[in-house]
Amino acid sequence: MAVYTDITETELSVFLTGYDLGELRSYRGIAEGSENSNFVLHTGKGEFILTLYEKRVEEADLPFFLGLMQHLALKGITCPLPVARSDGSLIGRLAGRPAAIITFLEGIWPRRPTAPQCREVGKALAGMHLASADFTLSRPNALSVEGWRKLWAGARERSGEVDTGLKEEIDRDFELFAHAWPADLPSGVIHADLFPDNVFFLGDKLSGLIDFYFACNDFYAYDVATCLNAWCFEKDGAFNITKGAALLSGYESVRPLSGREKDALPVLARGSALRFTLTRLYDWLTIPDGALVQKRDPMEFVRRWRFHRQVVSATEYGLIPA
Amino acid sequence: MAVYTDITETELSVFLTGYDLGELRSYRGIAEGSENSNFVLHTGKGEFILTLYEKRVEEADLPFFLGLMQHLALKGITCPLPVARSDGSLIGRLAGRPAAIITFLEGIWPRRPTAPQCREVGKALAGMHLASADFTLSRPNALSVEGWRKLWAGARERSGEVDTGLKEEIDRDFELFAHAWPADLPSGVIHADLFPDNVFFLGDKLSGLIDFYFACNDFYAYDVATCLNAWCFEKDGAFNITKGAALLSGYESVRPLSGREKDALPVLARGSALRFTLTRLYDWLTIPDGALVQKRDPMEFVRRWRFHRQVVSATEYGLIPA
Repeated sequence: MAVYTDITETELSVFLTGYDLGELRSYRGIAEGSENSNFVLHTGKGEFILTLYEKRVEEADLPFFLGLMQHLALKGITCPLPVARSDGSLIGRLAGRPAAIITFLEGIWPRRPTAPQCREVGKALAGMHLASADFTLSRPNALSVEGWRKLWAGARERSGEVDTGLKEEIDRDFELFAHAWPADLPSGVIHADLFPDNVFFLGDKLSGLIDFYFACNDFYAYDVATCLNAWCFEKDGAFNITKGAALLSGYESVRPLSGREKDALPVLARGSALRFTLTRLYDWLTIPDGALVQKRDPMEFVRRWRFHRQVVSATEYGLIPA
Repeated sequence: MAVYTDITETELSVFLTGYDLGELRSYRGIAEGSENSNFVLHTGKGEFILTLYEKRVEEADLPFFLGLMQHLALKGITCPLPVARSDGSLIGRLAGRPAAIITFLEGIWPRRPTAPQCREVGKALAGMHLASADFTLSRPNALSVEGWRKLWAGARERSGEVDTGLKEEIDRDFELFAHAWPADLPSGVIHADLFPDNVFFLGDKLSGLIDFYFACNDFYAYDVATCLNAWCFEKDGAFNITKGAALLSGYESVRPLSGREKDALPVLARGSALRFTLTRLYDWLTIPDGALVQKRDPMEFVRRWRFHRQVVSATEYGLIPA
């Protein structure tokens, strides 16, 4: 959410000699993006986003992330298209960091998503799941149950600072997941972080999906569950079943969920809420005040997680029973 | 250097009904600007900068700042042109804050200014001084000697935390300024903050001056002195006389300095370096860690200030003796 690395015109001009983008006209750091440095770049060929990958992104994962964007964009999914270098590669080096240029997408991410926007996101998510089915690279989900255990090991002892009783409460979920986490649902490439700030709209029309830097292989229904967490809760913490129904029916209009996927939604949504609780909790307890990385309140997801712990059936999310 | 206030599409769309700019296509927060929230805005009419003025800018000063930009732009100075609202005004309200839209300028601010760029800045500064001569509004310089005294009163006791002996050293300069600060040099509207990040270039050609939010009425030569501080010191703290000579000769090619202005340059440069020392010192000691406002090392300007305290004649800055 900041520019971690500034670059000089000289460095950038040298970097751009590896591309066929015309002359450099301007670059401005933007206050968006997950944990990388991002710039809006103007060249003789138009407007682009330049990203420098900071250390939270594994360099070995970049061919997966950029290859996926390229694969999806070429299949007509509205997402940024990585610009190929003259030698055909998608990744260069700038200021000592891996760096890439992707196309600029018009659109606005919704600060207060509406039900029609939830429906559009559901459709786009399903479209992405179908379009990535023949993408040949894969990447395990580092933030599934085993990854959560590692985060929890680093945050457990001090979790009481955030909410009393959280330690025992989360311990119990890990016991549950040890036997009740699904093992063989339909799976493939998922976005894994499709929050509103990663989806652009022009009015109610979806104009782009961005930020594929958590994408990985996992259950499609887990991606749906994450979207329920990301899109269908109000600021006061209440689940909005109208938005849930819109998101799920949008998804199913493109890729229907199987009975087993539907049955698994509550536990997947519960796990997904715990995943965001744990990353936020870990950051909250370990990142020093004053660091550039923005720390977000873990309690926002603790509340979602507690909601899902009460859910018995996916109909409570607005799913129409078959 | 961050986005302090986020805005919703709804708020922004309502705000834009006050302008003739076509439909909203995107807005992205940018990690630049002094102490305001800035967005790159795309509309049907092109690309603009949207600024929300945060509390460090006095709302009563906005007609001066925006009127000055308009005055300069219409006189051919390459600076942003404020976009007038349908009712002719330059300032609206957005998210509870005063807000304005200005044109987007292409160009890149130099991370490592060259001597030819220093010359261009000198010329542009003189051009701005001439072009603002018939601007009818005025604004006293809140950050001249009396303003420094107020900052010093808030930082003096703890200044030893930054450098031992600084207290007595700065006290002595205030005694000097009480009788040796110039009283009646040629004056008018000055930029007062023309650092490299406020000047855009395309190659060595200057393409824009931005950020007029410290502009005020004061001695023209004080603005020149501030540019010497801002442009002509190397990262290691050494003054680069080649750059100084380039800046001064560039300035004088458009507006020659009088003998009294030249004689005053050392004390003005010393005062200017103290001004940036004091604002940085004050922020350093009073802004809590973790605040979004970026705190910068006061010692960078303490060293410049100490340099100027040794200077006897403006020829030491590279001024060619008449």
